[in-house]
Amino acid sequence: MSKISLSIEAVESWRSFKSWKNVTVSRPRDRRKELPLTTQPTQTILEAIDNCTGSILIIAHNRPDGDSIGSVLGLALALDAAGKKVAIRSEDPVPEKYRFLPCVDLIRELDAEINPPVELVMILDCADFDRIGAAKALIPPGVTVINIDHHATNAGFGDISWIDPNTAATGEMIVRLLNEGGIRIPQDCAAGLLTAIITDTGSFQYAQTTAETLRIAANLIEAGAPISDLCEALYMQFSRQRVRLLARLLDRLNFACGGHFCYAWLDSEIFRKTGATREETEGLIDHIRAIEGVVVAAILERLPDGQQIRMSLRSKNPDVNVGAIAAIYGGGGHIAAAGAHIAEPHAEFESELVEHVCKTIDQAAIRPRA
Amino acid sequence: MSKISLSIEAVESWRSFKSWKNVTVSRPRDRRKELPLTTQPTQTILEAIDNCTGSILIIAHNRPDGDSIGSVLGLALALDAAGKKVAIRSEDPVPEKYRFLPCVDLIRELDAEINPPVELVMILDCADFDRIGAAKALIPPGVTVINIDHHATNAGFGDISWIDPNTAATGEMIVRLLNEGGIRIPQDCAAGLLTAIITDTGSFQYAQTTAETLRIAANLIEAGAPISDLCEALYMQFSRQRVRLLARLLDRLNFACGGHFCYAWLDSEIFRKTGATREETEGLIDHIRAIEGVVVAAILERLPDGQQIRMSLRSKNPDVNVGAIAAIYGGGGHIAAAGAHIAEPHAEFESELVEHVCKTIDQAAIRPRA
Repeated sequence: MSKISLSIEAVESWRSFKSWKNVTVSRPRDRRKELPLTTQPTQTILEAIDNCTGSILIIAHNRPDGDSIGSVLGLALALDAAGKKVAIRSEDPVPEKYRFLPCVDLIRELDAEINPPVELVMILDCADFDRIGAAKALIPPGVTVINIDHHATNAGFGDISWIDPNTAATGEMIVRLLNEGGIRIPQDCAAGLLTAIITDTGSFQYAQTTAETLRIAANLIEAGAPISDLCEALYMQFSRQRVRLLARLLDRLNFACGGHFCYAWLDSEIFRKTGATREETEGLIDHIRAIEGVVVAAILERLPDGQQIRMSLRSKNPDVNVGAIAAIYGGGGHIAAAGAHIAEPHAEFESELVEHVCKTIDQAAIRPRA
Repeated sequence: MSKISLSIEAVESWRSFKSWKNVTVSRPRDRRKELPLTTQPTQTILEAIDNCTGSILIIAHNRPDGDSIGSVLGLALALDAAGKKVAIRSEDPVPEKYRFLPCVDLIRELDAEINPPVELVMILDCADFDRIGAAKALIPPGVTVINIDHHATNAGFGDISWIDPNTAATGEMIVRLLNEGGIRIPQDCAAGLLTAIITDTGSFQYAQTTAETLRIAANLIEAGAPISDLCEALYMQFSRQRVRLLARLLDRLNFACGGHFCYAWLDSEIFRKTGATREETEGLIDHIRAIEGVVVAAILERLPDGQQIRMSLRSKNPDVNVGAIAAIYGGGGHIAAAGAHIAEPHAEFESELVEHVCKTIDQAAIRPRA
């Protein structure tokens, strides 16, 4: 499955949602598709916010990460301070590691009541409409849906969509939106938005980090976001169990393609022996990615049923698109980070994956570092 | 040995050097000491550079780190582009991990010839005059010595000293100096200076990172420093041997003071078994520092003779000064990072260290995280 077919699928999901809700899709899809993805309809978004007298419902994607959580919190706190009624909902709960964030309890489960009724919906950092899961049911018929995202695979669902794949984090886009609208960024809002940027750039290390990313982060520090405290909470609070898990993971690395592909398996036994939880696997893959010569890193996790596999992939080279590899297994993602859930892996899954990855690496003709 | 006595020692070293070179110390020490450490004599420094018609000798500290290497390279390349004659010298060679930096070969060994003769000396990122080691011999009598540094323990040796302990890296001070002098920052210079800032802030994570640090980094990106390439070279090029070393280190952690102190021993056996070199221990301590509850992290390395110990210390809490703990063993450093070399440890070294650390932690009355 290529990137394009994924996008069309996402559009179909949104269109069928709209027809299910008995609403005409307000603008013809075909015209929308001609617009460059970087069109910035920020003024339209600000007007919609300004005109909204009911609740603004802000939705995070399921299995929310730092960018998702930081962005929804940041946007909500800024709009709340500006006198708007806001509600944040997420199908999945906020992972333990992000629960230190101020006002994180504003992100509530789907069945929490919203008052006054929702008049505007904003979906953040969500490449695919399906990724909000059951939160779809909270969108009243006829209400404008705004889609703000930085994923290149976002096909532009929603009534207003603002997709900027050149931005390092959705949190960065929220800062630009608030600045353009002259909306003040309170301290707790700044903490959320800086968290979004830090986590999606790996602390300003990934390729999409620009001078603008750093300037926006500087402004958030001045708005009161305590950068070193945030980094300590994000990167300096690993449990001893997680440390044991890392030690064992690093002892079971497999190398292929002359060291350009490195992967490791996780299974129930390693969790039992180390005491770590499955939630604590976040970031482990970065340690594999950090090895000299590695172009593609993978963690393959055999789920408790012993059959299903969760696969995470990372690429260090922009010419090696792990999103395309994940798509072979029905998954998705970016060039640099992707994943898939394989429900029924056949016996040759591992050797086949190695073959796919090596072929992709070979095609990119990786040159040794100068 | 307290921070103050360390400083006096450093001043003594500089004074005896000056008398050995038969030069009068140009300004009375006592008057200098009354000046606040943050006095910014940048105009005086710029004038000295401007007036220099011979070579400007730039010296890195021994066992140079990323801030030292990046700062000397950055300063040299900017001054070279501005038409000045520059030479860089370092007692110790540039570690392998920094050899990717453009123009790194400009940092040469002490016996390389300097032409025309040295007329001005600039010592960067060097808290103590003794820390340039045998490079002292390269300083001609009567030549002005400029000391630019961000270490709070720097007592201000040199004829002109600019110490700003509120700055995250010496590289940041060099950018400010160049900006103030209207000196253009060429691309390779920007790469060196950004490396200095990235390494001394742990990629913008440590407490001294300010909004200004990020803005300066943004300017360096615009001057052509490729931030993600630099981060890949700095953090994504660990050898497999280094990864094995990390795995074993994480398997031999010792906890004390209710988990607030965590330390591990390295010895010849672990290097033999993993194939890692002693140079590759850099950054290992951050993995210990990253454990939940840990306030002080330590790596104790038994040197090949089996008797001497190299100790590295890190503190996550500004109220727990590991510099003071290192000073007990004749070492030095900052509140957050310090080290010592223990030539003749007695049998109870380990239990005594645990006692010292626990006492320091207890005195700071660490509260559990909210």
